[in-house]
Amino acid sequence: MKFANGKVSEVQIAYIGGGSMYWAKNLIADLALDEELSGTVRLYDVDYAKAKMNEKLGNSVSDYAETKSRWTYHAYETLQEALTGCDFVFISILPGTFAEMHIDVHEPEQYGIYQPVGDTTGPGGLVRALRSIPMYVEFAEAIERWAPDAWVFNYTNPMTLCTRTLYEIFPKIKAFGCCHEIFGTQNLLIRMLRDMEGIEGVQRDDIRVNVLGINHFTWLNQATYQNMDLFPLYRRFVDKYYEEGFEHNKDAWKTNTYTAANRVKFDLFRRYGLIAAAGDRHLAEFMPPWYVKDPETVQAWKFGLTTVPSRVAKQADAESFYRKLVSGQTKLPLKASGEEEVRQLKGLIGLQTFVTNVNLPNVGQMQGVPLGAVVETNAVFSGNSLRPVHAGALPVDVNNLVLRHVLNQETILQAALNRDKSLAFRAFVQDPLVAIDVNEAEALFASMLSKTKTYLKGWDI
Amino acid sequence: MKFANGKVSEVQIAYIGGGSMYWAKNLIADLALDEELSGTVRLYDVDYAKAKMNEKLGNSVSDYAETKSRWTYHAYETLQEALTGCDFVFISILPGTFAEMHIDVHEPEQYGIYQPVGDTTGPGGLVRALRSIPMYVEFAEAIERWAPDAWVFNYTNPMTLCTRTLYEIFPKIKAFGCCHEIFGTQNLLIRMLRDMEGIEGVQRDDIRVNVLGINHFTWLNQATYQNMDLFPLYRRFVDKYYEEGFEHNKDAWKTNTYTAANRVKFDLFRRYGLIAAAGDRHLAEFMPPWYVKDPETVQAWKFGLTTVPSRVAKQADAESFYRKLVSGQTKLPLKASGEEEVRQLKGLIGLQTFVTNVNLPNVGQMQGVPLGAVVETNAVFSGNSLRPVHAGALPVDVNNLVLRHVLNQETILQAALNRDKSLAFRAFVQDPLVAIDVNEAEALFASMLSKTKTYLKGWDI
Amino acid sequence: MKFANGKVSEVQIAYIGGGSMYWAKNLIADLALDEELSGTVRLYDVDYAKAKMNEKLGNSVSDYAETKSRWTYHAYETLQEALTGCDFVFISILPGTFAEMHIDVHEPEQYGIYQPVGDTTGPGGLVRALRSIPMYVEFAEAIERWAPDAWVFNYTNPMTLCTRTLYEIFPKIKAFGCCHEIFGTQNLLIRMLRDMEGIEGVQRDDIRVNVLGINHFTWLNQATYQNMDLFPLYRRFVDKYYEEGFEHNKDAWKTNTYTAANRVKFDLFRRYGLIAAAGDRHLAEFMPPWYVKDPETVQAWKFGLTTVPSRVAKQADAESFYRKLVSGQTKLPLKASGEEEVRQLKGLIGLQTFVTNVNLPNVGQMQGVPLGAVVETNAVFSGNSLRPVHAGALPVDVNNLVLRHVLNQETILQAALNRDKSLAFRAFVQDPLVAIDVNEAEALFASMLSKTKTYLKGWDI
Amino acid sequence: MKFANGKVSEVQIAYIGGGSMYWAKNLIADLALDEELSGTVRLYDVDYAKAKMNEKLGNSVSDYAETKSRWTYHAYETLQEALTGCDFVFISILPGTFAEMHIDVHEPEQYGIYQPVGDTTGPGGLVRALRSIPMYVEFAEAIERWAPDAWVFNYTNPMTLCTRTLYEIFPKIKAFGCCHEIFGTQNLLIRMLRDMEGIEGVQRDDIRVNVLGINHFTWLNQATYQNMDLFPLYRRFVDKYYEEGFEHNKDAWKTNTYTAANRVKFDLFRRYGLIAAAGDRHLAEFMPPWYVKDPETVQAWKFGLTTVPSRVAKQADAESFYRKLVSGQTKLPLKASGEEEVRQLKGLIGLQTFVTNVNLPNVGQMQGVPLGAVVETNAVFSGNSLRPVHAGALPVDVNNLVLRHVLNQETILQAALNRDKSLAFRAFVQDPLVAIDVNEAEALFASMLSKTKTYLKGWDI
Repeated sequence: MKFANGKVSEVQIAYIGGGSMYWAKNLIADLALDEELSGTVRLYDVDYAKAKMNEKLGNSVSDYAETKSRWTYHAYETLQEALTGCDFVFISILPGTFAEMHIDVHEPEQYGIYQPVGDTTGPGGLVRALRSIPMYVEFAEAIERWAPDAWVFNYTNPMTLCTRTLYEIFPKIKAFGCCHEIFGTQNLLIRMLRDMEGIEGVQRDDIRVNVLGINHFTWLNQATYQNMDLFPLYRRFVDKYYEEGFEHNKDAWKTNTYTAANRVKFDLFRRYGLIAAAGDRHLAEFMPPWYVKDPETVQAWKFGLTTVPSRVAKQADAESFYRKLVSGQTKLPLKASGEEEVRQLKGLIGLQTFVTNVNLPNVGQMQGVPLGAVVETNAVFSGNSLRPVHAGALPVDVNNLVLRHVLNQETILQAALNRDKSLAFRAFVQDPLVAIDVNEAEALFASMLSKTKTYLKGWDI
Repeated sequence: MKFANGKVSEVQIAYIGGGSMYWAKNLIADLALDEELSGTVRLYDVDYAKAKMNEKLGNSVSDYAETKSRWTYHAYETLQEALTGCDFVFISILPGTFAEMHIDVHEPEQYGIYQPVGDTTGPGGLVRALRSIPMYVEFAEAIERWAPDAWVFNYTNPMTLCTRTLYEIFPKIKAFGCCHEIFGTQNLLIRMLRDMEGIEGVQRDDIRVNVLGINHFTWLNQATYQNMDLFPLYRRFVDKYYEEGFEHNKDAWKTNTYTAANRVKFDLFRRYGLIAAAGDRHLAEFMPPWYVKDPETVQAWKFGLTTVPSRVAKQADAESFYRKLVSGQTKLPLKASGEEEVRQLKGLIGLQTFVTNVNLPNVGQMQGVPLGAVVETNAVFSGNSLRPVHAGALPVDVNNLVLRHVLNQETILQAALNRDKSLAFRAFVQDPLVAIDVNEAEALFASMLSKTKTYLKGWDI
Repeated sequence: MKFANGKVSEVQIAYIGGGSMYWAKNLIADLALDEELSGTVRLYDVDYAKAKMNEKLGNSVSDYAETKSRWTYHAYETLQEALTGCDFVFISILPGTFAEMHIDVHEPEQYGIYQPVGDTTGPGGLVRALRSIPMYVEFAEAIERWAPDAWVFNYTNPMTLCTRTLYEIFPKIKAFGCCHEIFGTQNLLIRMLRDMEGIEGVQRDDIRVNVLGINHFTWLNQATYQNMDLFPLYRRFVDKYYEEGFEHNKDAWKTNTYTAANRVKFDLFRRYGLIAAAGDRHLAEFMPPWYVKDPETVQAWKFGLTTVPSRVAKQADAESFYRKLVSGQTKLPLKASGEEEVRQLKGLIGLQTFVTNVNLPNVGQMQGVPLGAVVETNAVFSGNSLRPVHAGALPVDVNNLVLRHVLNQETILQAALNRDKSLAFRAFVQDPLVAIDVNEAEALFASMLSKTKTYLKGWDI
Repeated sequence: MKFANGKVSEVQIAYIGGGSMYWAKNLIADLALDEELSGTVRLYDVDYAKAKMNEKLGNSVSDYAETKSRWTYHAYETLQEALTGCDFVFISILPGTFAEMHIDVHEPEQYGIYQPVGDTTGPGGLVRALRSIPMYVEFAEAIERWAPDAWVFNYTNPMTLCTRTLYEIFPKIKAFGCCHEIFGTQNLLIRMLRDMEGIEGVQRDDIRVNVLGINHFTWLNQATYQNMDLFPLYRRFVDKYYEEGFEHNKDAWKTNTYTAANRVKFDLFRRYGLIAAAGDRHLAEFMPPWYVKDPETVQAWKFGLTTVPSRVAKQADAESFYRKLVSGQTKLPLKASGEEEVRQLKGLIGLQTFVTNVNLPNVGQMQGVPLGAVVETNAVFSGNSLRPVHAGALPVDVNNLVLRHVLNQETILQAALNRDKSLAFRAFVQDPLVAIDVNEAEALFASMLSKTKTYLKGWDI
């Protein structure tokens, strides 16, 4: 990297999963829109041809008039080539295919277990983790070997376990997990200020929050705007919209299965007194099956069960659009993605100091949770430095909800590393969604493992 | 206390719950049979008349020919009188009456929740704790005021929360909880040695165990006899008796609802690899409803659901026998109870040093559990000294089972001290046995609280 | 407080020690120069007349043309009046008079112990702490009673023990200690960049540092400018100036006994590999008497021994200038003090989020030091929120230097609270500067206590 | 090992340092006198010929009439042979020769530093540690490879660092350090009971103590006999004998430089309120040079400075006696050594459960000291199990004395493992006895290292 005139050039980013048709577009746009940074993105993907396509797309953007900085995109066939010499690593992969995801999400429905997302927790999250962990073992080993000083941004779910695996294998790795779910909650609070108080023009950074928990099951125990404590207002807001829900676009949840009316969030606030800070679809999966008992219950709580067939259909649309982009038929719209990766890059490069939420191993920032577990709290980004901010502790009753998952994730990690089916099953039945007969749970577990076994090398299945 | 010629006289014991018809008989016999100690037992009970009866019974034993040491029994009308000047305090009470216990145990059955005991965990254990905690607040305050240096032996269930309350109110109290469930497991291992290896004559102290967990949900991760590791043998033993079960008296569980065929213990060993060290009726209550789904399931696992009507009947028999004792019609049989209270007294007095299991606040003896939580591990009894032995940590999957209860107990304590119904309900639905719809759980909870409300002074019910 | 149009009015600040002739001037100027805040400063001082003078001076500044915001100053006769209703409390007092300070600093010289400052550690720091702690007990009790929600800024030395006392007495207090010594080290690094690399115009916030330690004995284990690691450069800088020293104004240390040539800092870097981040006069006091063995040694290391007579003389000058200010004969020069109190106010009010170093109880931000000890690390100021940033641990050899003082401070606190002379002496002889015969140490200690006994109410001296 | 009829045969003990002329005799006698154990002792020594001599001596004892059990002694030329198949390992070596010990102890005297023993702390202890650590690295590696399940008894000084090194290299080692200094203090308390109260016949086990600290710098915060708290009595005892001292044999310290009149112990009790529990010669070395300022001061405190020439002379006598033993001219007197190695063997074999003091890594048994540091507290010996007993925390002022050494030992370990001279020097000047000018300390350190450099392979000296 080179600093000159307040700009930084020759930034080297390796992008694992660089054949993506979604996230790559965001990155290309975000980088193109930033005036201060330039450099090279080294694309690596198990499907090299796809990485090649993003190479083409990325480089084409340099010619756009509205592009503010030039980045070179280059696809590599090996992790070694992509990693060697890089300053930053982004990891954003799909662990398996839609076929495995279909099993993750829908097989449990045969046993009455409904999962709105199925990529983080529950039976689906567990099986997805078993597939992901060996991949992340490989990434960690490669990074230790070829880019030990690079900062590593993880975007893959299950976020906690992917990030945790990196640290388990290479404890000195400088990795963290990024997630925008907190941003969604901050935006909800902005809309609340408008709805309840008529306050307009509030920016996300103006909503100051203290974050505690694990990815997709995070909680706020403090939220302020200027010197206003937002909790009393949120209580009135919940009272007003508890039954009806509150959405950005009214009744969007009925057609868009990626969205929700925040009723789960409101119910958790009433019960636990804290602001649950992730989308309802995620939150519902971490609790006992109160909100996902059956499709009718889900309807009543006003959120969608995102089906894998719907993802497949969406993917087909995306692919068709993507082909137009790569062929040059259509131009990539350059607009900010709302993600923070460029801001985080700039923080670590030393261009600014700021605070945001990330997933990091617990070094004491979250009390009541074992050291080493990956937790989501605020952290300070600064020159070659990412340090968690002390977040304190959750109340004991909420901590009990969270710890059950934290320890289960640790169990899953050990099971995956040791290919221990019995231990994996013990984690499986400890998940709150698996509130079924233990013998049925055995049948479901066996079936799910069997159908994903291509990815479970060395397991006795 | 006075030491002379290897004997100790003038030992002063205050006995809260001293009107008991069961435990008092044990104490009277155990004390009478020990040659080294003598002194006074100061009986206190909310029912003074009952304490008076034990005064009469206890003193009558001094005249028995087989009595080895003389103890004076005296009933007091106030805690202050009973406690002032005492060296030791025993607490063994029934928090409420059989009427409340009936609700604890049987009301949940209306909602499909079966509890073999219902005094420690589950809906019944929780409600019993809500009744007990205010009583223990009173005891702790009285001990702080009138006997701050006394050693306090607690025998009441829920053991963990009663002991925990004493420390919450008077942190410098020298209290511990005593339970014989580990002894039962040591005896099972003795019978195993006989059955599998033909080894006879093994004493309980020869079975050396490392104990970790919470009362009634304790685990052994090491068990030896001489230099023999008992785990491989136990595995074979479990394999041999997994289906059939193994009992002291074959099929006793069919008629005696206080007993079990150890099948739950065997199943937990197969699943988790550790020896669960309490009776099956207790163990089953701490798990999800795998073993107590319905009466048929309980039958299949070969243990009894102890009903409260059966307790009432047993009590009537006991009372009739007790009346004969008090009237002098029958002599109290002087035989050792199998409890350790006299041995523990002698340890604390400075007559011997030994190791046994007790319930104490965690000061680090059990890793992976918050400091301050009451845990059950080994401890060293010595002159005016009771110090826990480092027990290490449970494997993460088993720790997850235990921690859920540890944090729930802490939640219950806070709910009871603050008379916080919402918080108590959050603990209620976090119990693994409450695997029912959250709305039904609300109905059950409301009903149970309402029926025990006499004991919930100051609550908004 | 009221927010309107990006400004905050009606801020209420209580100022304990509000009769100051120094620090009050800074505050008056800093507040007057800020456009966003306005409100009232409530002056309290044991010398009410002095507080009254600052009331007059402060209010007079409202009339200055260059004043950007209006603040009202009001002197109160009681803590209760000053505190009731305030949002913020500043504490900046002199614990005792110059007479006691003279004993603190110069009495030990009779025994060969030289202290360049004598207000933080060493014999002088200890005795000053014994005087200060009872005063801070009183402040903590008053704040708990009359302003429990106020944020409390402490400026008094010994910083660590004053802040620690506030938390000991009122554990929920929202207090922190402020010190500018780190700023001085950041400024040294800025001058280094100019001297070694020709880089101009660097601002203090551009020098990003990780801070660990205790007040006046703080260490940096990371320092960056942009993406440049400053440690290799600092090593060369130290090599260049090790013998000669490096000063803002060459040879200033010869005449200004408040300054130094940074040779102690350089020597500590050579020995320990970290950047010691306080003035040399402070640093030297925390080490064995390597740098302060005798006045010649001090000369050789190029820093001043600040004498109390010189402080008295300086005070006389200040007083004469101050009288002109109060009388209106001279106008108070309105220039920024370089302190951060206004920025910190604005952070806590919710106007900005930023990171700076402060003294706070250890909740885990500094590993290797007991929880509860007051440590100096970075922290995030945000809306009604001050949270430490995880600073990690010092290397074991440096931690050993620091911990000795941390535990000694804890010992001093207990000694002061319990008026325990024997314990205070044990702390005294544990100080590295007290490297004298233990019997001589007893004589010195007795003499120092005796001469400050007016402030040691209830001690047996 | 085989159990039969309450006896255990075929016990396999490897003895590293098995060429010893002292400790071997004790072991041979202790083993011969025990009825329950028999087996083989595998002698290994860097001087094989010496091990051979002990083989001869050990086997000859089997023929003695008074021998109660038969042990076979066999000398091996390699660690591999000695270790393979053993159940227990004893390590008792001299790290270096008397020549190096002479430098350890007497070179510092040139700089005014007097050390009564010089093998644990101070300049001598540090340099001895630098020699020992590489040897213990080798032992740990050998044990990991050839006897990973064996229990390892360490007897070598510096006890703490030797034991700590074993765990650093092979974290799963089952090692502990044994020391009899506590026994000496228990015996002092027995003599106190006789002297002050006329109580006769008290056994060491009857003096129940709580032990905290590090080897040779251990403290008792509780000591009881029966139900008697020994602290008030000890205070009167100290008052009675403070000036005169109290010895087993009056004025023995004048001629026997291994003994002392306990005045240091008494002075530490007066100052700190706890019973320091090691010989005065050891205790004095851990403090600032209060007791060892110069030979006159040592005289006044009534203990001996054990010179290395006196050790050499003693050794010559011992050798001449030893030669008679080996030649069969004289019979080895079979009397119990007073050490506990046989009792400890029997505990670990599963023959008995008991509590005694040992050196083990801190897993929480001693609060206020980092986890992993080797501390001395009580522990429970039981079947294949050695578990520390919770000892609590030292008062903060005493902990400060101890922690300084704990952290310094950790520094020395790192310096030795990394052959880091600068770090070793930082530890050197942090030792309380090195209260000399830092430049003189550098000269002494350089001289000492240079004279022991044969043992510092790979160092840059």
